[in-house]
Amino acid sequence: MVDGRFFEDFTLGEEINHATPRTMSAGDAALYQALYGGRHLLNSSHPHATRHGYHDRPLDDWLVFHIVFGKTVPDISRHAIANLGYAEGLFRQPVYVGDTLSARSTVIGLRANSNGKSGIVMVRSRGENQNGETVLEYVRWVMVHKRDPESPAPEAHMPELAEFVAADALVPPTGSFADWDSIASGSDRRFGDYAIGEKLSHCPQSGGGTTLEEAEHMMATRLYQNTAQVHFDGLAQSQTRFGKRLIYGGHIISHARAMSFNGLENALGVAALNSGTHAAPAFAGDTIYAWSEICDKAEAVGRDDIGALRVRHYVQKNAALPQTTSALSAQPEEATADSSLILQLDCWLWIPR
Amino acid sequence: MVDGRFFEDFTLGEEINHATPRTMSAGDAALYQALYGGRHLLNSSHPHATRHGYHDRPLDDWLVFHIVFGKTVPDISRHAIANLGYAEGLFRQPVYVGDTLSARSTVIGLRANSNGKSGIVMVRSRGENQNGETVLEYVRWVMVHKRDPESPAPEAHMPELAEFVAADALVPPTGSFADWDSIASGSDRRFGDYAIGEKLSHCPQSGGGTTLEEAEHMMATRLYQNTAQVHFDGLAQSQTRFGKRLIYGGHIISHARAMSFNGLENALGVAALNSGTHAAPAFAGDTIYAWSEICDKAEAVGRDDIGALRVRHYVQKNAALPQTTSALSAQPEEATADSSLILQLDCWLWIPR
Amino acid sequence: MVDGRFFEDFTLGEEINHATPRTMSAGDAALYQALYGGRHLLNSSHPHATRHGYHDRPLDDWLVFHIVFGKTVPDISRHAIANLGYAEGLFRQPVYVGDTLSARSTVIGLRANSNGKSGIVMVRSRGENQNGETVLEYVRWVMVHKRDPESPAPEAHMPELAEFVAADALVPPTGSFADWDSIASGSDRRFGDYAIGEKLSHCPQSGGGTTLEEAEHMMATRLYQNTAQVHFDGLAQSQTRFGKRLIYGGHIISHARAMSFNGLENALGVAALNSGTHAAPAFAGDTIYAWSEICDKAEAVGRDDIGALRVRHYVQKNAALPQTTSALSAQPEEATADSSLILQLDCWLWIPR
Repeated sequence: MVDGRFFEDFTLGEEINHATPRTMSAGDAALYQALYGGRHLLNSSHPHATRHGYHDRPLDDWLVFHIVFGKTVPDISRHAIANLGYAEGLFRQPVYVGDTLSARSTVIGLRANSNGKSGIVMVRSRGENQNGETVLEYVRWVMVHKRDPESPAPEAHMPELAEFVAADALVPPTGSFADWDSIASGSDRRFGDYAIGEKLSHCPQSGGGTTLEEAEHMMATRLYQNTAQVHFDGLAQSQTRFGKRLIYGGHIISHARAMSFNGLENALGVAALNSGTHAAPAFAGDTIYAWSEICDKAEAVGRDDIGALRVRHYVQKNAALPQTTSALSAQPEEATADSSLILQLDCWLWIPR
Repeated sequence: MVDGRFFEDFTLGEEINHATPRTMSAGDAALYQALYGGRHLLNSSHPHATRHGYHDRPLDDWLVFHIVFGKTVPDISRHAIANLGYAEGLFRQPVYVGDTLSARSTVIGLRANSNGKSGIVMVRSRGENQNGETVLEYVRWVMVHKRDPESPAPEAHMPELAEFVAADALVPPTGSFADWDSIASGSDRRFGDYAIGEKLSHCPQSGGGTTLEEAEHMMATRLYQNTAQVHFDGLAQSQTRFGKRLIYGGHIISHARAMSFNGLENALGVAALNSGTHAAPAFAGDTIYAWSEICDKAEAVGRDDIGALRVRHYVQKNAALPQTTSALSAQPEEATADSSLILQLDCWLWIPR
Repeated sequence: MVDGRFFEDFTLGEEINHATPRTMSAGDAALYQALYGGRHLLNSSHPHATRHGYHDRPLDDWLVFHIVFGKTVPDISRHAIANLGYAEGLFRQPVYVGDTLSARSTVIGLRANSNGKSGIVMVRSRGENQNGETVLEYVRWVMVHKRDPESPAPEAHMPELAEFVAADALVPPTGSFADWDSIASGSDRRFGDYAIGEKLSHCPQSGGGTTLEEAEHMMATRLYQNTAQVHFDGLAQSQTRFGKRLIYGGHIISHARAMSFNGLENALGVAALNSGTHAAPAFAGDTIYAWSEICDKAEAVGRDDIGALRVRHYVQKNAALPQTTSALSAQPEEATADSSLILQLDCWLWIPR
């Protein structure tokens, strides 16, 4: 649907095949590197990636997510008012340079808003490679405008979602991490070194944040072939309540992952996206800071080389993080009227034991 | 000629071999993606490109154009006052990652201006791949400073140029497009769905424009190894009548192609550049919008799978497009004193039938 | 050492293996192209590179330097006050797409400052490829904070460094340059065409500078996985005496190399880094200009196809270069209170005879 679906254009159970399949290249990976500056070993070093069973350096999991997400935008969220949340995201297998990603979504929930002007659409989206294998799936729900306020409301149906992905549903990487190289990775902190409830600053020095730039977030968002105009049209945005271009929320997620290297150096990759909230918009000129809480730990079935950490990433803007762990514990975990919190993202991460 | 040619340095019939040959890479294609955000299927999906007879995803035609054009700048337009026009541009074959492009130009027209300070130079430039095959040729003419106002004027010679490339001179892609995948491409609008005279907005929602950034246009222009200093030296430009860096006109062309996806989703690629005018300069901070008119349609000789659309792209700045087709028809097609028109570009495009 | 070493954490003779190994890709090379706009033939054209004995286009020498340098930052200079100098830098062999670079450093000098708050650390850093071959080595020294002013000062030891690398220590490229293509390279100026003491403007036209952008220097610095926060955190920097983000000095070096194409078109690559001083910081919005002095010339042992030029590059900001050679000679070569000089970099460069 070239001009995008309004709320009344969605049907429960409908499956939507999204344009445009995208072959991933070494250039995509390099741009991602230049945009976020990650230093995680598997994404950086071919010899280390292949030693652990990968065919090549895997692409960063969030790059894969953004490519799949971008494809869904013209069909799902061109007329969206807000991206309300994510759940049940599962990263099923690595994606490499040369793979071609396509995306499709199933409408799994619909509920008209009582104001008659909009409704909530929930979809389960899947990213597939050229072999038809699902590499990633996740649920998201968005508030979408109605074209016609008089159009009848569909029967409301909104499935219950798991608060987080069950640990035994995670799909571990197939290689062995028994001989993980802690010197090459930059840290010897492993599964056993993290405690549930522990809070980690990813900006351990005073400062350590990143100031966002228009050119960067727009290049990122175009790299993902995400065409949501709120990110690009400064003139149209000047007439909105924000007054300026909004930064794609996924841009903040990727910065959080790269920043989380300080403290989570050995986090191999993302196993699951449990939940996520873009608590407030980000704009060029904002400076962002990230910290995380260890929410849970899980063994990987039949594996003594890796485990999973359930980590909640927090990103705040324009306020540096406190420099002590106790002060960090006092940071707000929910957006409030005067909070600087812009992202809360709950993930399972793989890490060597 | 290291320091660039002035008007009196050009000789009619002279052939100029331009430095520097350039091997194209997956990184070039990814940067181009990040700079413009295109979604055309053949450039995006390896499986679809090879299904239609390409060896790999072809590089975007305008990326090829800019690389060839960039090579000509040090010899042809280092001392140019203005880039006056293009004509008889023909895209002869696809260019792939791994190909090496070089460029040469023949001086086909010269005419001194009556003011004695400058003259017009017309060249036919050719881009060749590593096998010596011409991949692209086009005519452009520029106004160039004289080094010495007293130097004698050459005999004026300025060839007549075709208003547009004849349809039977176009070089169609060699593969078959009989099984074109309209779901993957994002639209089922094909050759038969366009009418001569039809006008298409490429920004169909309110907004839909792109705000230009210094970092983006400079990265683009350096990617093309185009060294024209007006794009880079903000200090020197602050002392000109513009007061700021000028954006390479080709940067606008590439944005127009990417924006034209909305409405021309299945335009496979560019067959010919018939004419082009940079009606006014663009600067960082400007927001641009694109629309097109279908000027003509042509069958491809011996082919029932594709046809050619002659399309005139218009790019305007800092004024959103009207939201109705009738209002679009009232948009100015020529630059006027208060017009926001910055580009008019007449092309033949291939499209499946 | 995850949080970075303070002065008292360094031990003379200590060897430090730096994280994170990095596999170089075509995307890295393309980004480098887009950031600096170089046109040197060997880095641009695969057919020319392989004709002269390379396996592929070599990566730009400074890209290799920045990647190696970036790896040393978390261990060596996270708590640095200033990067004081470079010496004895030797580029030993080309690096290609697909190579994996890692870095290690040996502490070769230590001296506490009399103020008790800091000290000077000198390291010899080596970049190695996946075969354990050293591709690059260099000495640098930095002033580093002490964690504890009361910590005892180590015995001072600071080795004498060569003023420049001896010509017979340079490692020439292995291929032959007897049939160098001066048309493809853009100039016929070769070894014999340069005189010791000659000064070259790399911005031969009025203007010809480059204005620096936040998005560009940050993308560059993240591409190099260099995490020094002074380049990224605009909020923290607003509270320093500079008031804004500092640009990584290596970003200026790479601009100087690309600008030096005008005048040193045939400089094949960098043989040695003799010395370098970042005389003053650079910021987004600054416009930079480069010129060079030919300091020395040397034959390559047993080679009649190439020679080495010892060239001192100067980069100044916010003041265009004079347009005559005599005026260029009057440019200041040392930073002074009101000087605009920001970089002085002394290198050996290979060039065909």
